[in-house]
Amino acid sequence: MNASASRMEKLRAQMAMTGTDLVAIGPGAHMQWLLGFHPHADERPCLLLIVAEREGFLMPALNADASRQFTDIAFHSWSDDEGPGAALSAALAGTGSENAEKVSIDETMRADFALLVLDALPNASRSYTTETIGALRMQKDETEYSELKQNAMIADLAMETAFAAIKPGLTELQIAAIIRERFADHGAKPLFTIVGAAANGAFPHHQTGDSKIKDGDAIVIDIGARNGTYSSDITRMALVGAGPEGYAEVHAIVEAAVQAALAAARPGVQAMEVDAAARSTIAAAGYGEYFLHRTGHGLGVEGHEPPYITATSETVLETGMVFSIEPGIYLPDRFGIRLEEIVILRDDGPEILSRLPRTAHIAKV
Amino acid sequence: MNASASRMEKLRAQMAMTGTDLVAIGPGAHMQWLLGFHPHADERPCLLLIVAEREGFLMPALNADASRQFTDIAFHSWSDDEGPGAALSAALAGTGSENAEKVSIDETMRADFALLVLDALPNASRSYTTETIGALRMQKDETEYSELKQNAMIADLAMETAFAAIKPGLTELQIAAIIRERFADHGAKPLFTIVGAAANGAFPHHQTGDSKIKDGDAIVIDIGARNGTYSSDITRMALVGAGPEGYAEVHAIVEAAVQAALAAARPGVQAMEVDAAARSTIAAAGYGEYFLHRTGHGLGVEGHEPPYITATSETVLETGMVFSIEPGIYLPDRFGIRLEEIVILRDDGPEILSRLPRTAHIAKV
Repeated sequence: MNASASRMEKLRAQMAMTGTDLVAIGPGAHMQWLLGFHPHADERPCLLLIVAEREGFLMPALNADASRQFTDIAFHSWSDDEGPGAALSAALAGTGSENAEKVSIDETMRADFALLVLDALPNASRSYTTETIGALRMQKDETEYSELKQNAMIADLAMETAFAAIKPGLTELQIAAIIRERFADHGAKPLFTIVGAAANGAFPHHQTGDSKIKDGDAIVIDIGARNGTYSSDITRMALVGAGPEGYAEVHAIVEAAVQAALAAARPGVQAMEVDAAARSTIAAAGYGEYFLHRTGHGLGVEGHEPPYITATSETVLETGMVFSIEPGIYLPDRFGIRLEEIVILRDDGPEILSRLPRTAHIAKV
Repeated sequence: MNASASRMEKLRAQMAMTGTDLVAIGPGAHMQWLLGFHPHADERPCLLLIVAEREGFLMPALNADASRQFTDIAFHSWSDDEGPGAALSAALAGTGSENAEKVSIDETMRADFALLVLDALPNASRSYTTETIGALRMQKDETEYSELKQNAMIADLAMETAFAAIKPGLTELQIAAIIRERFADHGAKPLFTIVGAAANGAFPHHQTGDSKIKDGDAIVIDIGARNGTYSSDITRMALVGAGPEGYAEVHAIVEAAVQAALAAARPGVQAMEVDAAARSTIAAAGYGEYFLHRTGHGLGVEGHEPPYITATSETVLETGMVFSIEPGIYLPDRFGIRLEEIVILRDDGPEILSRLPRTAHIAKV
């Protein structure tokens, strides 16, 4: 059985378990995971409908031939002139889902795609595919692990290249460009290259810009790139010279939070316990109000996906799950510190994908 | 008045005209156009709510500080631990839109963002922002025109570089890489670089791959890149040597369809009339069934946006609208031909942005 057939089988078991009659997904990550491809995504409604016994595609006519190379699933195609209405009715009828009582909707797809399905099934109750496909995607197999590991190795190289390049006078954008080039050298497509120097580092999602690196800066470097289906995600810190006043103390607290979360992450534990381990470490040191976000997120076909490691998540962690552990402390107008590892959960605890130490790199002035 | 204030004023006039109480948009193209920025977009619900008298943001806490650099709009922020529920209620109350009777929803945002708003307003009727912001975005001002024109000039250079590089033995992906490099040289970020050689050209959205260019191929090259807020989009044809049998005749038909559409595009005309001009030209030549898509789409903050030039669109074209004219003929297992111009509609007809002729480039063997 190929990967797609095996995943489809698992999905149907999950649908049975959750009482889901119909799963409707757009041309995005869920479909990529399930079929190994997705048709061209644009404003033209494109949907894969899955019921217990069969599947059908609502397919823009101009993408039908190209998509046929990848799948044997029945197409209900529609042209730009006709619009998708009649083809959707045919797809629902063709899959026998006109009377679906519970539909699982791709939460990531365009609003107009989702409402097209929901309007056609006014009596159906609704859930999100986090409950069906998303639940399955959390656990990675060894092929997925290999791809993620390889991507992590490339990200390590890109991070080391950034470390080597940092010097006063360069801008954040120039360092980001060096990182992107290194990713590209290894065939990886850069997805994000956050370089936040000095006070910019206090914005977790800083928009990398023209700020120049100065002596005494602390620099947050959060980068990721896609190679194949999967991507990388790592955050490390660099200091220029001695770094800012008070840096070492705060770095040690974030490091302790990472270690506490790593120690808490075991199969059978709820995600909130991992978050609590990191959060309580930071709170106990008096910096609780400066840890602005959750402790982590899953990594797979998407850069952010379940399991989310939050203070309220009851998701039970299981062997094979891949997620980030990335506590941070953000001190407004001063600096920010975030240290991020991607781990795969093994029977005896988390295996860290990166080989880089979490100590701050010190760039000479 | 700055661009954002002026656009907000126009939006409110449009809301009054369409009886819209509330506009709800995500961190995407609509917001970029309206505010000149949007907060980091991820799975965390982030919404701008606009009513007649005020605005409010539903804002993930970790992005609040970074976003505050760009806007004075009130934030109703929520942390990863709280979730967005209470903050959304506060945002609806804060803008006085808890009892909105008609809400205009960003059709491009994530399904779960849209359903969050719709679930909170169960008695509201719903429309899409195509009717409010989308209607305004169709008409470009001269600043937008300048940016689009500059992008078109860069795309011309990238196309000429591709023409110069084509030779038997190169793969589609190698030609695409050359195009991307040329875009990057000019500071433009490549968005798509479709290179479809021989039979691959018969797929309008061909996934550029490892196929090697051969003597006698016809090659569809459809490329675009973003520089600043706006992007480019152009399609031209290249032939290797003499090209495939029957090429010249089909190229002449597509060229005639472009010219017919250009002649039909005048202020006051419905979009369907422009489509009909291209379509009837191709149909009259006996190739109607091989023209698989609409004649064109708008180009602005998004690569595809209204006005759509389809067989059924009653949108009345007006001075200042920017859209593509791109008829094509796709002959399965043989070749495809598409010729695409981006035009801005002037009082006396369309002005073509590109300076490149539409004749096929002939690459020597």
